[in-house]
Amino acid sequence: MAGPLTSPDVAGEQTGDPHGRLPPPVPRAVGIVGGGQLARMTHQAGVALGIRMRLLAAGPEDPAALVVPLVEIGTPDDLDAVLPFARRCQVVTFDHEHVPQPVLRELVATGVRVAPGPDALLAAQDKAVMRARLTGLGVDCPRWQVVSDRGEAREFAARIGAPVVLKVARGGYDGHGVWLPGEGAMVPQADPALGPDPFAGDVPVLAEERVDFVRELSALVVRSVSGQAVAYPVIESVQRDGICVQTIAPAPDLAPDLAAAAQAVALRIAGDLGVVGVLAVELFQTADRRVLVNELAMRPHNTGHWTIDGALTSQFENHLRAVTDLPLGAPSLRERWSVMVNILGGDVPDLASCLLHVQARDPGIRVHLYDKPVRPGRKVGHVTVGGDDLPGLLSRAWHAADYFAGRIDG
Amino acid sequence: MAGPLTSPDVAGEQTGDPHGRLPPPVPRAVGIVGGGQLARMTHQAGVALGIRMRLLAAGPEDPAALVVPLVEIGTPDDLDAVLPFARRCQVVTFDHEHVPQPVLRELVATGVRVAPGPDALLAAQDKAVMRARLTGLGVDCPRWQVVSDRGEAREFAARIGAPVVLKVARGGYDGHGVWLPGEGAMVPQADPALGPDPFAGDVPVLAEERVDFVRELSALVVRSVSGQAVAYPVIESVQRDGICVQTIAPAPDLAPDLAAAAQAVALRIAGDLGVVGVLAVELFQTADRRVLVNELAMRPHNTGHWTIDGALTSQFENHLRAVTDLPLGAPSLRERWSVMVNILGGDVPDLASCLLHVQARDPGIRVHLYDKPVRPGRKVGHVTVGGDDLPGLLSRAWHAADYFAGRIDG
Repeated sequence: MAGPLTSPDVAGEQTGDPHGRLPPPVPRAVGIVGGGQLARMTHQAGVALGIRMRLLAAGPEDPAALVVPLVEIGTPDDLDAVLPFARRCQVVTFDHEHVPQPVLRELVATGVRVAPGPDALLAAQDKAVMRARLTGLGVDCPRWQVVSDRGEAREFAARIGAPVVLKVARGGYDGHGVWLPGEGAMVPQADPALGPDPFAGDVPVLAEERVDFVRELSALVVRSVSGQAVAYPVIESVQRDGICVQTIAPAPDLAPDLAAAAQAVALRIAGDLGVVGVLAVELFQTADRRVLVNELAMRPHNTGHWTIDGALTSQFENHLRAVTDLPLGAPSLRERWSVMVNILGGDVPDLASCLLHVQARDPGIRVHLYDKPVRPGRKVGHVTVGGDDLPGLLSRAWHAADYFAGRIDG
Repeated sequence: MAGPLTSPDVAGEQTGDPHGRLPPPVPRAVGIVGGGQLARMTHQAGVALGIRMRLLAAGPEDPAALVVPLVEIGTPDDLDAVLPFARRCQVVTFDHEHVPQPVLRELVATGVRVAPGPDALLAAQDKAVMRARLTGLGVDCPRWQVVSDRGEAREFAARIGAPVVLKVARGGYDGHGVWLPGEGAMVPQADPALGPDPFAGDVPVLAEERVDFVRELSALVVRSVSGQAVAYPVIESVQRDGICVQTIAPAPDLAPDLAAAAQAVALRIAGDLGVVGVLAVELFQTADRRVLVNELAMRPHNTGHWTIDGALTSQFENHLRAVTDLPLGAPSLRERWSVMVNILGGDVPDLASCLLHVQARDPGIRVHLYDKPVRPGRKVGHVTVGGDDLPGLLSRAWHAADYFAGRIDG
């Protein structure tokens, strides 16, 4: 089980580089493509592990670029930026899913270690691929079909006897790229107020059964290069306008068999797709006791932010341990309940100005600021709070988030 | 209670700078003089608070310089390095006690906010000053006297009827600068094997009663600019050759009245000396139920490293909150017991090569590496582990530390 970190001669290894084009990677250098808050919090975790993070960021003011020393500026679709960056790293991982497949495959071809690899990552980049693979694995999903126009979507909805949502297969995030059917409609109408039409681009469009779920869950697992995996407790998430606003760990009143089923499906997907690093499986829980896979993400995920304060090992640390092939840390809860609420930008431009009130009112609240310019609705931080009294924890976390957003005065 | 972080016009403030020599400080920029592991772990905590750390390090390979983006290279006694650095910061704090008083006072004179301030810091820099101040406050200390030669030390030892240790007043650390009397001797002998003689330099020498303690304790408190203070649970520390090797939080079997007395004396010292930031008070517990002050430190301290994993708010975060005048976070224990063991350098040059074994054996252990070149006996990291079974926790923590040091094979 010797991993790349444990071999004293790792710097001299040239495996996977038959042409000798790749200089020896720097031991302990993990590269992250993307400079957002996920990379920022991953660096925090890497400090304890003695990892020397390298960042390929879009700009010097990216949240992670403000806290990481080794930053290169470049875009993820520019091989001339990504390849030289990657060659300076022992392994390359990601803050987002926006590295194009040809770039990923060229990195692998030249011997760069990429985690997760291109094949796995494709299922997080392309919802049509994801649905096809999960269906092939027999994983429960909403019924789905790739459609080329509203007529096909309408036929599909009629056939399954349920309204459908439309999703572009690639490029969506935080509710962008998803269209919901109006009240009483079977198919989302074309509506310029909802942004461009899904069929306007050249990206495949999926019609998916609109699931009448009772709540959303997230099963977060981490899998290492060697194939070791851990599953975090299944959590409940609340989405508003497509953005995760709140999580509760563990999901309240979740039957043990459903929790186990959710963890099992996430572990199975991670293994079958060959994921390395975090895999977040967002799920719908239905009234008839099923869990259906909604989305996949292969990187630290918003539904795992609670783990920094609420789990023994954070998702960020375990992601680093996974991609550097170290044994994974215990994912157990440190408290009975851990509540996370996102700070979404409001009309307070300077979040730091809120700390005095928030921290004085609640010495036990944990605040995480991303140092991003505040824009309405943008994720600019999160708070977590843990303990025994779940209603009290929710109240405390929402008070802080509401205050940061300017929705309340005190 | 408006603090510097909460005033929207802080960048325009020129208070304390009547000559207009100081450019507006950068909001959210905390400067740390010194690039060791304390600054490294302080940066980790600052990321969550949205703080943009600036570092004045001795070299680019300092533990903190490897993880912080904004690094200037310079020595703490060079005003031409420290002053321009400090002017770019909202407040300046410290990784060590080695900034000379004239430099500190010039910073303050030019309007730089320094935390802790020079008057307070002097008591952590000079043991003779510390003893005089604590004696003036009526705080229980070992009996002491400044002595100019061994004859005076012998007279003092005879007068108090107890052996004495010798300490240089300034410049000691981790056991350096302290001489213990040999078996049966009243005063430490001159012995070239123990390094230079205390009287060889031009630094004052203290003779202090060698206290026949039953164990060592540490009372760590944090005090903010506004004077708010919190006290961490009193912990037991074990020193070996003058270096802290192990802490247990809370100190086992410590009577509540003694714990309260230790916290009270630390809070009183912090208030009376005007400390801003962490104050660690190292104490001797005696068989006759007294606690005597051994040493003071005014920065995050080795006896507080357990707080990263074992307390709700770490000493590093509370230090930052204190020096930026934010309300302090709860110092409460997250577990019944939290054990910390230092990783001291042994014959394994690459600590990362130990992670595979240590983490595979114990998924619950928390490892913190400082990314320092390994030298025998040098502090190069620490491990913590928490839970209910104290003997088990001690065994797990020592196994990991012994493995990193190469003292055991598996």
